[in-house]
Amino acid sequence: MSSNFGNSVKISIFGQSHSEGIGVVIDGLPAGERLDFDSILAFMSRRAPGKSNLATSRKESDLPKILSGIIDGVTCGAPLTAVIYNNDVRSADYDDLKEKPRPSHADYTAKIKYNGFNDIRGGGHFSGRLTAPLCFAGAVCNQILTRRGIHIGGHIAAVGGVLDDCFDPVNVDKDELLKISGKEFSVINDDKGNKMKETIRLANLEHDSVGGIVEVVAVGLPVGLGNPIFDGVENRIAAAMFGIPGVKGIEFGAGFQSASMKGSNCNDEFIFDGEKIVTTTNNHGGILGGITSGMPIVVRVAFKPTPSIGKEQQTVNMSKNITETLTIKGRHDPCIVGRAVPCVEAVLAITILDILSE
Amino acid sequence: MSSNFGNSVKISIFGQSHSEGIGVVIDGLPAGERLDFDSILAFMSRRAPGKSNLATSRKESDLPKILSGIIDGVTCGAPLTAVIYNNDVRSADYDDLKEKPRPSHADYTAKIKYNGFNDIRGGGHFSGRLTAPLCFAGAVCNQILTRRGIHIGGHIAAVGGVLDDCFDPVNVDKDELLKISGKEFSVINDDKGNKMKETIRLANLEHDSVGGIVEVVAVGLPVGLGNPIFDGVENRIAAAMFGIPGVKGIEFGAGFQSASMKGSNCNDEFIFDGEKIVTTTNNHGGILGGITSGMPIVVRVAFKPTPSIGKEQQTVNMSKNITETLTIKGRHDPCIVGRAVPCVEAVLAITILDILSE
Amino acid sequence: MSSNFGNSVKISIFGQSHSEGIGVVIDGLPAGERLDFDSILAFMSRRAPGKSNLATSRKESDLPKILSGIIDGVTCGAPLTAVIYNNDVRSADYDDLKEKPRPSHADYTAKIKYNGFNDIRGGGHFSGRLTAPLCFAGAVCNQILTRRGIHIGGHIAAVGGVLDDCFDPVNVDKDELLKISGKEFSVINDDKGNKMKETIRLANLEHDSVGGIVEVVAVGLPVGLGNPIFDGVENRIAAAMFGIPGVKGIEFGAGFQSASMKGSNCNDEFIFDGEKIVTTTNNHGGILGGITSGMPIVVRVAFKPTPSIGKEQQTVNMSKNITETLTIKGRHDPCIVGRAVPCVEAVLAITILDILSE
Amino acid sequence: MSSNFGNSVKISIFGQSHSEGIGVVIDGLPAGERLDFDSILAFMSRRAPGKSNLATSRKESDLPKILSGIIDGVTCGAPLTAVIYNNDVRSADYDDLKEKPRPSHADYTAKIKYNGFNDIRGGGHFSGRLTAPLCFAGAVCNQILTRRGIHIGGHIAAVGGVLDDCFDPVNVDKDELLKISGKEFSVINDDKGNKMKETIRLANLEHDSVGGIVEVVAVGLPVGLGNPIFDGVENRIAAAMFGIPGVKGIEFGAGFQSASMKGSNCNDEFIFDGEKIVTTTNNHGGILGGITSGMPIVVRVAFKPTPSIGKEQQTVNMSKNITETLTIKGRHDPCIVGRAVPCVEAVLAITILDILSE
Repeated sequence: MSSNFGNSVKISIFGQSHSEGIGVVIDGLPAGERLDFDSILAFMSRRAPGKSNLATSRKESDLPKILSGIIDGVTCGAPLTAVIYNNDVRSADYDDLKEKPRPSHADYTAKIKYNGFNDIRGGGHFSGRLTAPLCFAGAVCNQILTRRGIHIGGHIAAVGGVLDDCFDPVNVDKDELLKISGKEFSVINDDKGNKMKETIRLANLEHDSVGGIVEVVAVGLPVGLGNPIFDGVENRIAAAMFGIPGVKGIEFGAGFQSASMKGSNCNDEFIFDGEKIVTTTNNHGGILGGITSGMPIVVRVAFKPTPSIGKEQQTVNMSKNITETLTIKGRHDPCIVGRAVPCVEAVLAITILDILSE
Repeated sequence: MSSNFGNSVKISIFGQSHSEGIGVVIDGLPAGERLDFDSILAFMSRRAPGKSNLATSRKESDLPKILSGIIDGVTCGAPLTAVIYNNDVRSADYDDLKEKPRPSHADYTAKIKYNGFNDIRGGGHFSGRLTAPLCFAGAVCNQILTRRGIHIGGHIAAVGGVLDDCFDPVNVDKDELLKISGKEFSVINDDKGNKMKETIRLANLEHDSVGGIVEVVAVGLPVGLGNPIFDGVENRIAAAMFGIPGVKGIEFGAGFQSASMKGSNCNDEFIFDGEKIVTTTNNHGGILGGITSGMPIVVRVAFKPTPSIGKEQQTVNMSKNITETLTIKGRHDPCIVGRAVPCVEAVLAITILDILSE
Repeated sequence: MSSNFGNSVKISIFGQSHSEGIGVVIDGLPAGERLDFDSILAFMSRRAPGKSNLATSRKESDLPKILSGIIDGVTCGAPLTAVIYNNDVRSADYDDLKEKPRPSHADYTAKIKYNGFNDIRGGGHFSGRLTAPLCFAGAVCNQILTRRGIHIGGHIAAVGGVLDDCFDPVNVDKDELLKISGKEFSVINDDKGNKMKETIRLANLEHDSVGGIVEVVAVGLPVGLGNPIFDGVENRIAAAMFGIPGVKGIEFGAGFQSASMKGSNCNDEFIFDGEKIVTTTNNHGGILGGITSGMPIVVRVAFKPTPSIGKEQQTVNMSKNITETLTIKGRHDPCIVGRAVPCVEAVLAITILDILSE
Repeated sequence: MSSNFGNSVKISIFGQSHSEGIGVVIDGLPAGERLDFDSILAFMSRRAPGKSNLATSRKESDLPKILSGIIDGVTCGAPLTAVIYNNDVRSADYDDLKEKPRPSHADYTAKIKYNGFNDIRGGGHFSGRLTAPLCFAGAVCNQILTRRGIHIGGHIAAVGGVLDDCFDPVNVDKDELLKISGKEFSVINDDKGNKMKETIRLANLEHDSVGGIVEVVAVGLPVGLGNPIFDGVENRIAAAMFGIPGVKGIEFGAGFQSASMKGSNCNDEFIFDGEKIVTTTNNHGGILGGITSGMPIVVRVAFKPTPSIGKEQQTVNMSKNITETLTIKGRHDPCIVGRAVPCVEAVLAITILDILSE
């Protein structure tokens, strides 16, 4: 199976980059939730390409059309289905890729898995375009979470080796999360942001691309969500997060950094903050034994550089059985990390609502 | 739900650190597989504590007893059930922890989740002891994979900031994997290993602990395993891996490092190696678009330092509603990373067999 | 969760009777399957209302539009999505039902479950209209099964107490199945069929409705499909079949009749038929211990009478807290059993393809 | 997959008739539930054979041993594991069945599925003996349901064509349910019960067996449990019920009878009973649109006659490729319907607790 996740709130993503439409079925949403579509569109536009000269110039009309699940703007308990129809599709660009898989794309593995019947146009079902319906679903879940006091926001933690500042993992609150994630270039430190932009600009000039890290935080969670061992909050977030194209790593709290720490530094001591039990530090990232501690959930996700680059690369010609060179035509996004922030937020929102709904 | 994972090969882990027994039900194994129990015990002994002065001195009798699923040493298609009976349990040590959760353990979150009814003794269901049946299951799956030409092995990639050398992610083969993972202290570079041991020894002297990184590799996989988006090989490995206590991060291939790379460096070009299509580098870690490429799967898992340390720590007294100090009694493992290597191998083996069985 | 089923071939049904559209996402279909759309439409038309004066006169435009998963008429491995847009919706008819649940419909239980936010128009998500996308999915799966030598067909086994003849459960073949199920009124014995039609006509005159039984058979299955205990073929077919509105019972082989039999009559003896092992009778309905025996799968499904009748009925007014009378307006289908035959075939086809794909 | 079911309360059954032990892992039980083991044993003894001359004389020691999940008699949130060790196993009886599958048992289908590696002794994993841990799980769930006001009880509704009286599906209450299900021979009408016993006695004399029907009722359910379409209460009960060996049919409320009814008779009108909304009849069996109506859930399950009979039967010799005769040795249960009542109650209890826990 493939394009489904969730136990209680179940997401089913469909579509290919150039199919008639792409979309999502969200099953298990609570009934009676009024949805603010302007806010959904605003969230989705953070992911959309074509906004600036930093991103891909293919223009998408990402306007989702609701087919079911909503009456007069309110969820009715039936599966919520949204479709984004594809208009601006130029299939001709992809014809010569049929036998020559692009390096570090899914072209080769998909061709083998599907015996050559896979949709190669624009990456088909593996396209980053599929994150548009994902962001729709995330925006919906976000609104529902907000009403339950849970807020999610993120930033570009790194681009091509340039690091942003970090959120304070203990004291970060919803206002800061929304302020930062709502920026056009979502960084905490704008100087660092400018350096990142310069890095992206240079990569673009060289027909190259850069990767980066997205950090997302959720605040306001109750204590005690999640389950032990294989069904912990970390397990479920991680399982879903690798659904975003380009993700190669995930960490919670101090993450890989904790591997270099001593227990006496890494352990988060419990104290009373008034009547509330909190930890003085948050290296655990809000999850202990798979279960929420009530502290902010802190997750960082590593994205590899966009594999579509303008430089000449080596690849195989699968019909001729020889190694050839390939230059991918068209304009490409030199860095998808900024657009990935809402995607990571979306996956976190969906997963948390799913766990909360159990 | 909690202690289950797998779609086709389904694992159900049960038990608490100090319950009558701990064990595993493995449902969906192929029938007709002869199991070598000496080899299973050898694999499990790599995880067992008490082997050296570097590890906890609590002695476990980890001998698994088979209840079902095997006839004359051969799987019969019915669920394979193995139990490890707990003998050496000293419950008295844990009585005063009932109201005082140990920092960075699951004591607090479990107490809230289960309304105080959770088994606090030795961490209960959240104990690292539950990785013993996990390793049993992993050893079983490993034997079955070996017959299908798939081999898994790992090493201690880092302890407390000391890094081991790396496997060559393109050319590593089964012989090297087995040689390294079979060592008593599983490192590639023994000098680095000695530095790690010294780091552990010093942490132990200070009643402290250190974390580390485990790297595991699988070779011999066919091309085309796995599914797109939410059911990719990475998604499933990640989902399972966070089931091992202490894991705070996971990465595949170049992982977090790829976030600092350029596309032209990170992309893995395809070439023909004879009639076989391979990549010249393996920054993708054997998985593209969630689907195996035939290159080695390379996964690295970050472990936080053992949270049980001998130093005095601050924590809350939940019945008195005050902040107090806590000194955890008993001997503790200053570093579980060495023992974690077979656990990571086990999760990888189970997950791969599960995906292979679809 | 709700509108999903399947392990390997995963169906997600969405929509409400009067929503913008209804449809289905089919995930996990094999790639490279050419689909014959005329044949799909022909299958769906067997379910469609409005063909004769025996059925409801609401006209549906059941033409499914493909959004994804197909290229040039061939499956590409990505989820196949089909939408049927709703045009002929007269919402006004349903306004007074908001507080007065129709007897034996889901109005009352849905209102409680969804706190009054459910879509009441035409039964909303609980409408029989949702079987249109189900039949689309069934038609797709049927074509794929046919290529693998598996054929499915059914008949109206009973209407309002009038019984049709039975298929020979041992010797029935694909030709007979297709001949009978392809009839406009799918019965084996046309005299019985005429009596059924008369029963339906009389019920219609009395503004009443009648129930019935659908029998469906699958031939050509290999031996050994399915799993023991809770994941047997019967378990999975039964689980899916109750997804069709109006189903109140299911039986396999001799079914409830076997409860009155002796072992010596009910047992199906094995013999060699050439080199093939078959049973001389087929009271087991093709499934033993949850696993296919290679004999025809025989399943019978009981449908209650259409709950929408023109007669005055008693019901509660939930806003006034009193018991009142209700007369349901509009024309209603006096018997849905004929249209249910392709629905039962569809569920069987989807379930068998799902099991076959594991 | 096979021996698992449940979403929130997850059951994993393991063991073969003659393996070292059989048992069950129950994951997802609420923590803090005190279990009364005498009552569990009493429930299980209703299923146990060897109580009377009507049942098989093989003596089982069905005493379950708890391995995990319970502290001081109270559930702790960790998976509850119970094992029944097999002592009285005489494997010799089964040796000649290896190549000669018993008619209407799973011997043949299992042999094909598992390539001959399946455990043939006593039916292996397909044995009715596996219902012992199922009843353990059912007894546990029953106790938890009772505390939530939900009560389950059943009776032998038919044996070999002799029908018992029926529960009043509208007014039946917990006292009557417990009184009837607690009888040594669980019938409402003892005269009918005596006729059933005579039918069984005669079948036994003839070395034959008889089938029957079990009816089970659950009262006290809240309105609004369950989900539409494929995840309704009927779907889930049906899916689980076919896990009991010998089940060939299931129906809810008026079930197959409703197929002969008119809408005006079958529809259940709503009225106010004080402040409570009830139906005047209960042909819907407590479930409308997959969702509970608050009326009693009424389920009937058809059991085929025990396939093990003393009479000579025809079967194939799979190694010699010829048809031969077979006489099954040993004593056999001429009717398992009485012992099946607690099994059906158990499945209903587990499923309802599962749905209630979502």
